[in-house]
Amino acid sequence: MDSYVIPMNGNGSLPSVLDVHVNIGGRSSGQGKMKGRKARWSVRPSDMCNKTFNPIRAIVDSMKVKPNPNKAMIALSIGDPTVFGNLPTDPEVTQAMKDALDSGKYNGYAPSIGYLSSREEIASYYHCPEAPLEAKDVILTSGCSQAIELCLAVLANPGQNILVPRPGFSLYKTLAESMGIEVKLYNLLPEKSWEIDLKQLESLIDEKTACLIVNNPSNPCGSVFSKRHLQKILAVAARQCVPILADEIYGDMVFADCKYEPLATLSTNVPILSCGGLAKRWLVPGWRLGWILIHDRRDIFGNEIRDGLVKLSQRILGPCTIVQGALKSILRRTPQEFYHNTLSFLKSNADLCYGAMAAIPGLRPVRPSGAMYLMVGIEMEHFPEFENDVEFTERLVAEQSVHCLPATCFEYPNFFRVVITVPEVMMLEACSRIQEFCEQHYHCAEGSQEECDK
Amino acid sequence: MDSYVIPMNGNGSLPSVLDVHVNIGGRSSGQGKMKGRKARWSVRPSDMCNKTFNPIRAIVDSMKVKPNPNKAMIALSIGDPTVFGNLPTDPEVTQAMKDALDSGKYNGYAPSIGYLSSREEIASYYHCPEAPLEAKDVILTSGCSQAIELCLAVLANPGQNILVPRPGFSLYKTLAESMGIEVKLYNLLPEKSWEIDLKQLESLIDEKTACLIVNNPSNPCGSVFSKRHLQKILAVAARQCVPILADEIYGDMVFADCKYEPLATLSTNVPILSCGGLAKRWLVPGWRLGWILIHDRRDIFGNEIRDGLVKLSQRILGPCTIVQGALKSILRRTPQEFYHNTLSFLKSNADLCYGAMAAIPGLRPVRPSGAMYLMVGIEMEHFPEFENDVEFTERLVAEQSVHCLPATCFEYPNFFRVVITVPEVMMLEACSRIQEFCEQHYHCAEGSQEECDK
Repeated sequence: MDSYVIPMNGNGSLPSVLDVHVNIGGRSSGQGKMKGRKARWSVRPSDMCNKTFNPIRAIVDSMKVKPNPNKAMIALSIGDPTVFGNLPTDPEVTQAMKDALDSGKYNGYAPSIGYLSSREEIASYYHCPEAPLEAKDVILTSGCSQAIELCLAVLANPGQNILVPRPGFSLYKTLAESMGIEVKLYNLLPEKSWEIDLKQLESLIDEKTACLIVNNPSNPCGSVFSKRHLQKILAVAARQCVPILADEIYGDMVFADCKYEPLATLSTNVPILSCGGLAKRWLVPGWRLGWILIHDRRDIFGNEIRDGLVKLSQRILGPCTIVQGALKSILRRTPQEFYHNTLSFLKSNADLCYGAMAAIPGLRPVRPSGAMYLMVGIEMEHFPEFENDVEFTERLVAEQSVHCLPATCFEYPNFFRVVITVPEVMMLEACSRIQEFCEQHYHCAEGSQEECDK
Repeated sequence: MDSYVIPMNGNGSLPSVLDVHVNIGGRSSGQGKMKGRKARWSVRPSDMCNKTFNPIRAIVDSMKVKPNPNKAMIALSIGDPTVFGNLPTDPEVTQAMKDALDSGKYNGYAPSIGYLSSREEIASYYHCPEAPLEAKDVILTSGCSQAIELCLAVLANPGQNILVPRPGFSLYKTLAESMGIEVKLYNLLPEKSWEIDLKQLESLIDEKTACLIVNNPSNPCGSVFSKRHLQKILAVAARQCVPILADEIYGDMVFADCKYEPLATLSTNVPILSCGGLAKRWLVPGWRLGWILIHDRRDIFGNEIRDGLVKLSQRILGPCTIVQGALKSILRRTPQEFYHNTLSFLKSNADLCYGAMAAIPGLRPVRPSGAMYLMVGIEMEHFPEFENDVEFTERLVAEQSVHCLPATCFEYPNFFRVVITVPEVMMLEACSRIQEFCEQHYHCAEGSQEECDK
C-alpha cells in the first residue's frame, strides 16, 4: 500500500506521479479500464460553462477607456438603486429582519420552495379575484434571477427556443444559451413607446417554442404596457398555445400617470409563470429574495410543471431563511409613503432627464413610465466620429466621466440606457455633460439644414 | 388588429382559441412557420427536470406509516441542528447580522462571486502555509449546495462521470444526474471506520472521469479520515490525474480525540475545489452562505476553471449580502467556547448513542468521530420479519414513533442513520425505544446460538 503514499518531499510532481502510475499499473484492479489511458492532467471547463456568456460584462470589460481625470465619475450604468445611498430601504424592512433574527426561528432549513407561512404571505399579497393565488402557487427563490432560471429550466429543453424582447435584459439570453436553448428576439418599437411588434413576434413562433418572455415594466426601456396591449400579447400566446414567463420584477413601479396591470389578471386561459422579488420595489437587490407565481387556471401546466419546479428548487434549497422570516412584516408594515416617495423621486428624475435629452441635438430619448431606466436613441448620422453606441458611450466616459450602458448590451444598437436612480444633482450634472459632449461632436447630416438651425 | 383582442367573456377557451388561430392563420406573417403546426396546449417539464431526482424525498415520502399515537414522535432523521432549539447559533453571529443591517452598506448587489472584503475574510480564515489562500481563490455561493453544483457544472460535461462515496450524501447524485453526468459509486468500508476502498475506487476511474468527490468529515457516516488515509486518496488522484471536489462542510467538526485535516493541506499537486459554508459549524443552515476554495498550486485548473466558476456564478448572483456583510464579525468574534460546546455536546450524544446501540442484539453501530451522524448496521438475518432497512425503519416509526433514515437513502442498504443533534433526553428515550423494538423483533439466526445467549 506504500505506493499509495504521496511523496511529501515535493517530487509528487508530474513526472514522478506518472512513474508511480506505471509502477503500480499492473497491480491496479482498474488495469483493464486504465489500459491505454494516458494519465496526465487535463482539466477543461464544461461546455455549459463555455456557453455561459454575459454580454454586459463582455462589452463593459472591453471598454478600457479611462474617465476624464478632471471630472468626477458619474455612473448611470448600474441598475442598482442602492449604490448612491439616496434610496435606502424602509426602516420597517430592516426591523423585520432584526425581528426574524431575534426570534431564533429562522436559522434552520426551510422547505426548498420556502416556508409555507412566507408563501402564504406572498400569495395573499398578490392575490386578486382575476388571478387568485394560494401558497401552493408560490415558489420562493434566490433572487428573481433564480426564479427566471427555474422557469426556463422547467419549460425548455436544449434545442427548443424562447422568445425574448429586443431591447431586453441580457440575463434571459445568458441563462437560455447556457442551457442550450435557442433565443429568438422579438422587436419592441420605440415609436410606439416600446410596444411589441406583435406580427413579428408571432412570426417567430414554431413547434419548438417553449415560452414567451414578457418583461413589464421593462428593463432597459422603462416602458409600461397598456391593458389593451397586454391583451393582444395574451391573444398571441393563446392562439399559438405558448406559455408566458412574465418578468414582473418592476411590478407596481410605475409613475402616477399610468397603471400597472399584472399580466395574469388579464387572462383566463394562458398559463403564466410570473417572476418577481424584493429587489427593486423594496430596494434590497442584494438580499436575493425572489419568487415565482404560478397562474394556471386551465390546468395546462398541471402538476407536472408544479412538481418540476419543486424538484428543481431542491438543487440549491431556496433563499436566505432570515429574509423569508421577515417577509410577513415587510409586506404588511412597509408604509405606502415609502413606495410613493420612491416613485415620485424616479418620476421627477425621469422627467428631468427626458427633458434634457430631448433638447440635445442628435439624441432621441423615449419617455419612460416606470422602472428605473430611460433609453436614448443616438442619431448616429450626426455623430460620424463614432462607429456605434459602444464607441459613443466609451468617448462619453473618456471626455465627460459619464458612464451609460450602450444598448448593444441589450441587443439594440445606437441607443444608450440611463439609470435614473442617481441623486438629482448628479442627474443634472450628467445631463449637462452629455449635452456638452453632444454639442462638441454633433455634425450636420447632408440635406438636413433645419436640424442644424436648432 | 381586433382579432388580437382576447374575448373577455370567457370563451377564450381552447376551442374558440383554435378558431381564432384558423381564422387568422392566413394573415399571420408566421404562416410559413405555422404551416402544419397544430396549435394546442402541450406543456411538459424538461428532461433535466425529469432527471432531477431526490432519493431521500422519494423514499421518505413513500414511507406512509403513521407513528404510534401513544408515543411522541422523535425525529432522528433530519440533518438540521436547529430543529430542537437546543443548539442555537452564537449571539455574536446574530449581532453581526444586525450590524450588517444597520450599516445600510449591504443592501445592493454584490459581485456575483461575493464582496471582495468577504472573500478576503474567508481566505485569511482558511489560509495556511501548506494551502495558501487569497480572495481570488474564494467564491461565495448560495449555500454549500450551490458550491457543489457550480463545481460539478464547471468540471463535468454530460456523458462524463464523477466518483461518489457509498454511503454518501444524496445531493451529489441528484445534481450530477440532473446534468446528465454519470455517477460511479466507490465503497466506504464500515469495518475500517468508513475508509475508502482505494483499489475499488481506482478501478472505477476511466478517461471520462471528471472528478472525485471526497466528503470528510462524512455525512452520513460521521467518520473522519486520518492524515495517512487522505494522503493515499490524494495519491490515487495524482496518479490518475483526477481533480478532487472536497465536500468539507463538516470541516473542523471533529471530536476532541481526533484531528481534522483539510485535504488541500496534504497535497502540492492535486487541484482541489473545497466546498464549505456557515451551515453546520455556525448552526445556521437556512442562511445559505457557502463557498468554494480553489486550491491549484500547480496551475492545473488555471484561469479557465476559475473564470468558468465566475461565469457560472453570474447566473443567480451569489448569497444574501447581509450574511456576506456579517462574515467578518462572524469569523472573528464567534468565541471558541461556542465551537467547543457544540462539539462536546455532539461527542457526548455520540458516545451515548453508540453505547446504547452496541448493546442491542442485532445492531452494529459504527463509532463516529465527527459531524452530526452515526450509522447503525442491521443484521437483517436476525430480523426476518423485515424485508430491508426501509421496512425496518418504517416499522420503527409505526411502533415506537422513532424516525431514522434508512441508509438506502445513501445507497447503503441494511443500515440506518441516526442524527445526534437532538437533546440528550430525547436521545436516551429514542435509544431505549429502539432497544425495545429490536428485542421484540430479534430472532436467532440458525447456528448462531452464542448470539442468542446475549
